Amino acid sequence: MEIQNINWNYPTAMWFGLNRIKDIQKACDDLNIKNPLIVTDPGILQTGIINKINNSLNQSANIFSNVQSNPTGQNVDEGVKQFNQNGHDGVIAVGGGSGMDTGKGIAFMSKQQRPLWDFEDIGDWWTRANSEVIFPIIAVPTTAGTGSETGRASVFTNETTKEKKIIFHPKMLPSVVILDPDLTIPLPPALTAFTGMDALAHCLEAYSSHIFHPLSQGIALEGMKMIKDNLISAFKNGQDLKARANMLATSSMGSIAFQKGLGAIHSLSHPVGAIYNTHHGLTNAVFMPYVLIKNKEVIEDKIINLSRYLNLKNESFNTFIEWILEMRRELNIPHTLKELIKEDNLFEKMSEMALSDPSTSTNPLELNKDDFLKLYKDSFNGSLEL
Amino acid sequence: MEIQNINWNYPTAMWFGLNRIKDIQKACDDLNIKNPLIVTDPGILQTGIINKINNSLNQSANIFSNVQSNPTGQNVDEGVKQFNQNGHDGVIAVGGGSGMDTGKGIAFMSKQQRPLWDFEDIGDWWTRANSEVIFPIIAVPTTAGTGSETGRASVFTNETTKEKKIIFHPKMLPSVVILDPDLTIPLPPALTAFTGMDALAHCLEAYSSHIFHPLSQGIALEGMKMIKDNLISAFKNGQDLKARANMLATSSMGSIAFQKGLGAIHSLSHPVGAIYNTHHGLTNAVFMPYVLIKNKEVIEDKIINLSRYLNLKNESFNTFIEWILEMRRELNIPHTLKELIKEDNLFEKMSEMALSDPSTSTNPLELNKDDFLKLYKDSFNGSLEL
Repeated sequence: MEIQNINWNYPTAMWFGLNRIKDIQKACDDLNIKNPLIVTDPGILQTGIINKINNSLNQSANIFSNVQSNPTGQNVDEGVKQFNQNGHDGVIAVGGGSGMDTGKGIAFMSKQQRPLWDFEDIGDWWTRANSEVIFPIIAVPTTAGTGSETGRASVFTNETTKEKKIIFHPKMLPSVVILDPDLTIPLPPALTAFTGMDALAHCLEAYSSHIFHPLSQGIALEGMKMIKDNLISAFKNGQDLKARANMLATSSMGSIAFQKGLGAIHSLSHPVGAIYNTHHGLTNAVFMPYVLIKNKEVIEDKIINLSRYLNLKNESFNTFIEWILEMRRELNIPHTLKELIKEDNLFEKMSEMALSDPSTSTNPLELNKDDFLKLYKDSFNGSLEL
Repeated sequence: MEIQNINWNYPTAMWFGLNRIKDIQKACDDLNIKNPLIVTDPGILQTGIINKINNSLNQSANIFSNVQSNPTGQNVDEGVKQFNQNGHDGVIAVGGGSGMDTGKGIAFMSKQQRPLWDFEDIGDWWTRANSEVIFPIIAVPTTAGTGSETGRASVFTNETTKEKKIIFHPKMLPSVVILDPDLTIPLPPALTAFTGMDALAHCLEAYSSHIFHPLSQGIALEGMKMIKDNLISAFKNGQDLKARANMLATSSMGSIAFQKGLGAIHSLSHPVGAIYNTHHGLTNAVFMPYVLIKNKEVIEDKIINLSRYLNLKNESFNTFIEWILEMRRELNIPHTLKELIKEDNLFEKMSEMALSDPSTSTNPLELNKDDFLKLYKDSFNGSLEL
């Protein structure tokens, strides 16, 4: 494919193409943002990306960058202070999941009267928010995986309880997303691999969930084909713009697709990230084959359809697992949880956390605490039976 | 699948499930519609559908039903008069393409100062409209094919010029779509076949276009799988609710997908419908294999991928064509244009109309007037070479 400049409109405006970052001022104008706050993380500050953005704005914007790699409620609180002190009227959220999630959190929280955790994604808690005072968000992803740019939620760690909490509000969906593959070129191979596997986890769990959402089903399916055709290339040659462009699109697609639901990969991964601060995409990638095999009895037919469209060498569940394992090896992703965390003494507590994770309800197979405990142990030890 | 009640949110709110028509009052409330006008066609008036709707409303709504099967600008004008005389504040657009397109046109036109044709889908003509005075639309499809419910355009015949014109405005997108498969049960077999083939034409041309829109690509792909698995069943047994439910979903998916572009099937079909008043889906179905073979050189790889996901007996372009031909036969759809229209003396003029049709620009192969002329002649005579 040549890389077209094109605007997509569901679920939100996505401006895709090379050098689309030059349209950032137009995005501000469209949303009537006169004094944007750029929210990003310290890693992005080391690249030329923020300069590129500021050079495309009529005047340079302020920056908030005290954002951890698994961002916390305190990061949001601090950003809100800066946002309000300087009278900002919108956020340009730049980064991987951390920068974008925090940017979305700041635009959402700046004028709310209740604390962040009151808006956790439970029932209709989001209706507690005053939706009239949420500022518009422009999202600029610099990695290809999290999909926060097309999502209506952010994930923050509650430092007191060491839990990851999903904060949800429909107006946390960015109003304009700029998908400029150029910005993902600086991403090092390891992060390319981790974030790419995050996109795959989103597509795969959405595709596997039993919720009837055929739009998401198709988006997840096409996303996985693009990942198969592009992730290894983007990993091996970070300058491959076509591979970068495709991966950036799949990232947005994964997060759109998972409106259909996630599953146990995410249930297992969230506690690990919250307690041990591991990379979310990497953690998902470790759990992926263990969860697939656990779910086999209920997803086998779907996975066979999938392996057919992916044009794997056989149309079978096992061939699909072998493809996942082979891709993980090529991307240098460890096979065991042991290689990510040293200890196995919190598995009881983590299994409880996994069971109560919102992703658990849409796992294709109903799982109990013992199932999660066994999944933690097996993935720690690398016990995987095809 | 069991039929779940579920709400989808892209590109608009779609409320899917059995008996969702009971939520019509909630849809009015959500959109602050206090005095809706029901717009539909005379055929629907013969069914119990309008009663079902009125029984679910706090008070019965007025009805406008002077809508032709290829609706005209005059139908819109007349509806606008009734809408304004009775001070309506929103439209419930019920039907196949005719009823829904006209309903959308009435909500759009009721307070505009310029004539309908000034808003044809050419360049930025839609910006000529005053977008502040467009009334909200609730769409209730009773056929599964047109996809007007998820589209931002309507098609009307200009009776003076005998041309079909696409009228476009972003606010013509219905704000709530009710997808209740029960309402499609009365649809007779022939219309089930024609409208189902229309959904297939939307998915197939969107899938084949060269525009990079991977979300639409995936939606089109999944839509075609659902059509393969359900259209014949819905045709043979109109009471098959699962088949009806799937076909209703694919109809919305087809029209979402074709934001990626249509192609020569539609270019050829529009003039035939405008001049001879043939059914749009039926006309598309006649042209389908001729256009596929014309485009073969540029779409073969994509069609092979598609035939793989559809699990056809071979992964080849010809197998796909054979599947289309076989399905047409099962649905009693004629193979030649001759069976739809008697005369072949307007093909020169129709070829010019086809060439200037907006769908032509996204056909995967660039076509000229002579190409269209040959396509008209070949499909009239049934000259199809595999």
